[in-house]
Amino acid sequence: MKCLFLIAIIQLLLQCTGKPLSGDDSYQKISEDVKREIAGYSDIAKAIINLAVYGNAKNRSYERLALFADTVGPRLSGSKNLDVAIEYMFSALQEEGLENVHLEPVKVPHWERGEEFALMLAPRSHSISILGLGSSVPTPPEGITAEVLVVSSFDELYKRAEEAKGKIVVYNQPYTSYGETVQYRAQGAVEAAKAGAVASLIRSITSFSINSPHTGWQYYQSNVPKIPTACISIEDAEMMARISSQGTKIIVKLKMGAKTYPDAYSFNTVAEIVGSKYPDQVVLVSGHLDSWDVGQGAMDDGGGAFISWEALSLIKDLGLCPKRTLRLVLWTGEEQGGVGAEQYYQLHKGNISNFDIVMESDEGTFMPTGLGFTGSDKARGIMKEIMQLLQPINVTNIYESGGGTDIDYWVKDGVPGASLRDDLSKYFWFHHSQGDTMTVQDPSQMNLCAAVWTVVSYVIADMEEMLPR
Amino acid sequence: MKCLFLIAIIQLLLQCTGKPLSGDDSYQKISEDVKREIAGYSDIAKAIINLAVYGNAKNRSYERLALFADTVGPRLSGSKNLDVAIEYMFSALQEEGLENVHLEPVKVPHWERGEEFALMLAPRSHSISILGLGSSVPTPPEGITAEVLVVSSFDELYKRAEEAKGKIVVYNQPYTSYGETVQYRAQGAVEAAKAGAVASLIRSITSFSINSPHTGWQYYQSNVPKIPTACISIEDAEMMARISSQGTKIIVKLKMGAKTYPDAYSFNTVAEIVGSKYPDQVVLVSGHLDSWDVGQGAMDDGGGAFISWEALSLIKDLGLCPKRTLRLVLWTGEEQGGVGAEQYYQLHKGNISNFDIVMESDEGTFMPTGLGFTGSDKARGIMKEIMQLLQPINVTNIYESGGGTDIDYWVKDGVPGASLRDDLSKYFWFHHSQGDTMTVQDPSQMNLCAAVWTVVSYVIADMEEMLPR
Repeated sequence: MKCLFLIAIIQLLLQCTGKPLSGDDSYQKISEDVKREIAGYSDIAKAIINLAVYGNAKNRSYERLALFADTVGPRLSGSKNLDVAIEYMFSALQEEGLENVHLEPVKVPHWERGEEFALMLAPRSHSISILGLGSSVPTPPEGITAEVLVVSSFDELYKRAEEAKGKIVVYNQPYTSYGETVQYRAQGAVEAAKAGAVASLIRSITSFSINSPHTGWQYYQSNVPKIPTACISIEDAEMMARISSQGTKIIVKLKMGAKTYPDAYSFNTVAEIVGSKYPDQVVLVSGHLDSWDVGQGAMDDGGGAFISWEALSLIKDLGLCPKRTLRLVLWTGEEQGGVGAEQYYQLHKGNISNFDIVMESDEGTFMPTGLGFTGSDKARGIMKEIMQLLQPINVTNIYESGGGTDIDYWVKDGVPGASLRDDLSKYFWFHHSQGDTMTVQDPSQMNLCAAVWTVVSYVIADMEEMLPR
Repeated sequence: MKCLFLIAIIQLLLQCTGKPLSGDDSYQKISEDVKREIAGYSDIAKAIINLAVYGNAKNRSYERLALFADTVGPRLSGSKNLDVAIEYMFSALQEEGLENVHLEPVKVPHWERGEEFALMLAPRSHSISILGLGSSVPTPPEGITAEVLVVSSFDELYKRAEEAKGKIVVYNQPYTSYGETVQYRAQGAVEAAKAGAVASLIRSITSFSINSPHTGWQYYQSNVPKIPTACISIEDAEMMARISSQGTKIIVKLKMGAKTYPDAYSFNTVAEIVGSKYPDQVVLVSGHLDSWDVGQGAMDDGGGAFISWEALSLIKDLGLCPKRTLRLVLWTGEEQGGVGAEQYYQLHKGNISNFDIVMESDEGTFMPTGLGFTGSDKARGIMKEIMQLLQPINVTNIYESGGGTDIDYWVKDGVPGASLRDDLSKYFWFHHSQGDTMTVQDPSQMNLCAAVWTVVSYVIADMEEMLPR
């Protein structure tokens, strides 16, 4: 309040002197008062960092996550494991004494992969490692045995569409970036089906592999036949491309027992530290509790969920009471397109003016480098200032774009959004694969991520003013 | 001859002047004549490099290997695939017009893994990725279901031996180096069995994993019960260690259908460029043709075998006729302890004085850095000089130790030995795993390896004198 009042006075004075602030300047510059206010959190930031990185809470988020991931295992939408995970977290948050611990019902897709395999029958016998893609239809019980057409792009498929009829299309597209290459996983089956293919096998969306297939969601289109679809390893995709380039016929038998059940009940899991002064105003920290059905979902998104939980724990441990409510949301159904987040948005969007910032960690909790941020220039200026509080651990960067699957609904509506940024160099090596386990997580990196997450969320929750939109 | 004669004259002159050469100096220094002789190969070395790296033979070793590996697949000792591989190579070497192409019979172990799996039944259901170890006995048809004892070292096993009785011992030993850590794979079953364990599961011998188990040979001891043994991934070993450290009981069901058959007939595959002046004297270049039964054996040891073949091809393409015979040997049964190499040694050791140098490439064909070498100081001096011919591609290092499984019999008997050295940083990530495929091979790196291998083997085969022992 004080801050906004001062700005108003200064603007008025400037207007009286005939020197209007340029629009840009007024947004980019934050007042000295706000700078002082943020600098005033220096000791608290240090206390949070000390507790998270060197103190009693050191390695806690890692250890909690390990116990959780080892106990529950992977947590696919609609699965018993996801129910167990939600119950586990509900109890843990309650036992810790967090406030308003509750579950918000969500209807989520329920797809199971069942038994699945692929065999190259010709030119020689070879077992192809596959992971069926989420929402894929099954093959007939006897499987599909067909010749393979290998293409390296959609363009090649369109050009050779005549050859695809009755075949299994194998995509051996190069990996450029996840965002660009993932279209082959998402739309590979539809494009192959349009050309008359009977199934599609897609090179996994990663730059590195130890014969490791990666799963993920894929999307059928109405009026296009639904064909079974799975990802294969880089190695097998490249091998079939080489064999095919020799003019040698490849025959593959694909068997998938995938099954889609009616939507299941699930829950977003919520806990709070209720604000001392503006309890209706909310700083939301989040990660998703569901995962794919392979590995342990330790990285995607156990890490993000557990550093979000850790933010509340650290603040509670330090006896801090932010002015605004700090709300932890552990989303469900993220891997099916952010189903839990979408339903949360529909339920709470009426209260959007009270959402100060929405924060999501869903791109790893490796060595942190800073935050992605979407918001007004002025809010960005404040965020930059807040990040200076993290100089003791040298994580001070603010990058473009703070969106993410689970917060984008809010961000598109103008709520400031922040996402954790970290060293992603190996992230997609493990993503949606059997390699997403606790082995890839590093306790000291998680400590640093938790410190960043906590300092930022606490300071925003405690400042006099909400972030300007 | 000329060279030795000059050295003798110089030595005689020095002795006459009362200044005896120190023993070390006489070995380390090579004569100016030899230096000149080696420098005289500069143009030939450049021609080899140009052909291998930039010319018509560019990428040939990679392309040949890809066609071979894609056609044949993995080639376990005793398998049909290994027979196919040997026939394939015999034909290819003959078709190329190499000399004395022939097969030398070898009796090799014949072990097959059969169907195998492991399930963690408690505290939750989880499929454990395994690869049974070569020579392992099977489980009973119904499998073995037992509680797990996790240890991190043999020492811990010895201390907790009382607890191991009737259990499945899981080794979660840290990876220090392959040479040190591989003892757990080789002896893990025996040590566990001594303590009364019913099976052993061993963390794979690698520093990095995407839930990837690695196989390999293991050794039973007489008077110690033979128990089934397999490797598991780093991830599962670490997970069971964490669960166990919580005091939680782990139950695993292990099923292995491994079978040991009577020894099979196999062959070392040999081809030559017969020496123009000293045809009985031999420079041997080699790699092994057999592999494990997973992946494609492209790295271990397809790469080594195919750059060795490439050495003969490049020399033939350039119309070069070395004075000594250049002999390619593609070993069989290396993965079972160098069975083919041992039988080759027994057969040919009578001719040992005619073996100039034995060269083996079996530690990757990634970016080459030089050669490991074992031999006299004087021979080392000559090798250093020869490596200077590789300055155009900046691969000039000579390291200690040029041994290897397939040449050690000769090296121990005093024959100079050389092994290719290259960037091993990812080698053990793929070694003996499903990840050992053409995808890990790089054509331009193979070109460089082939150039090194060819220049060195040709120059040694063509110099006036054999390397001094």
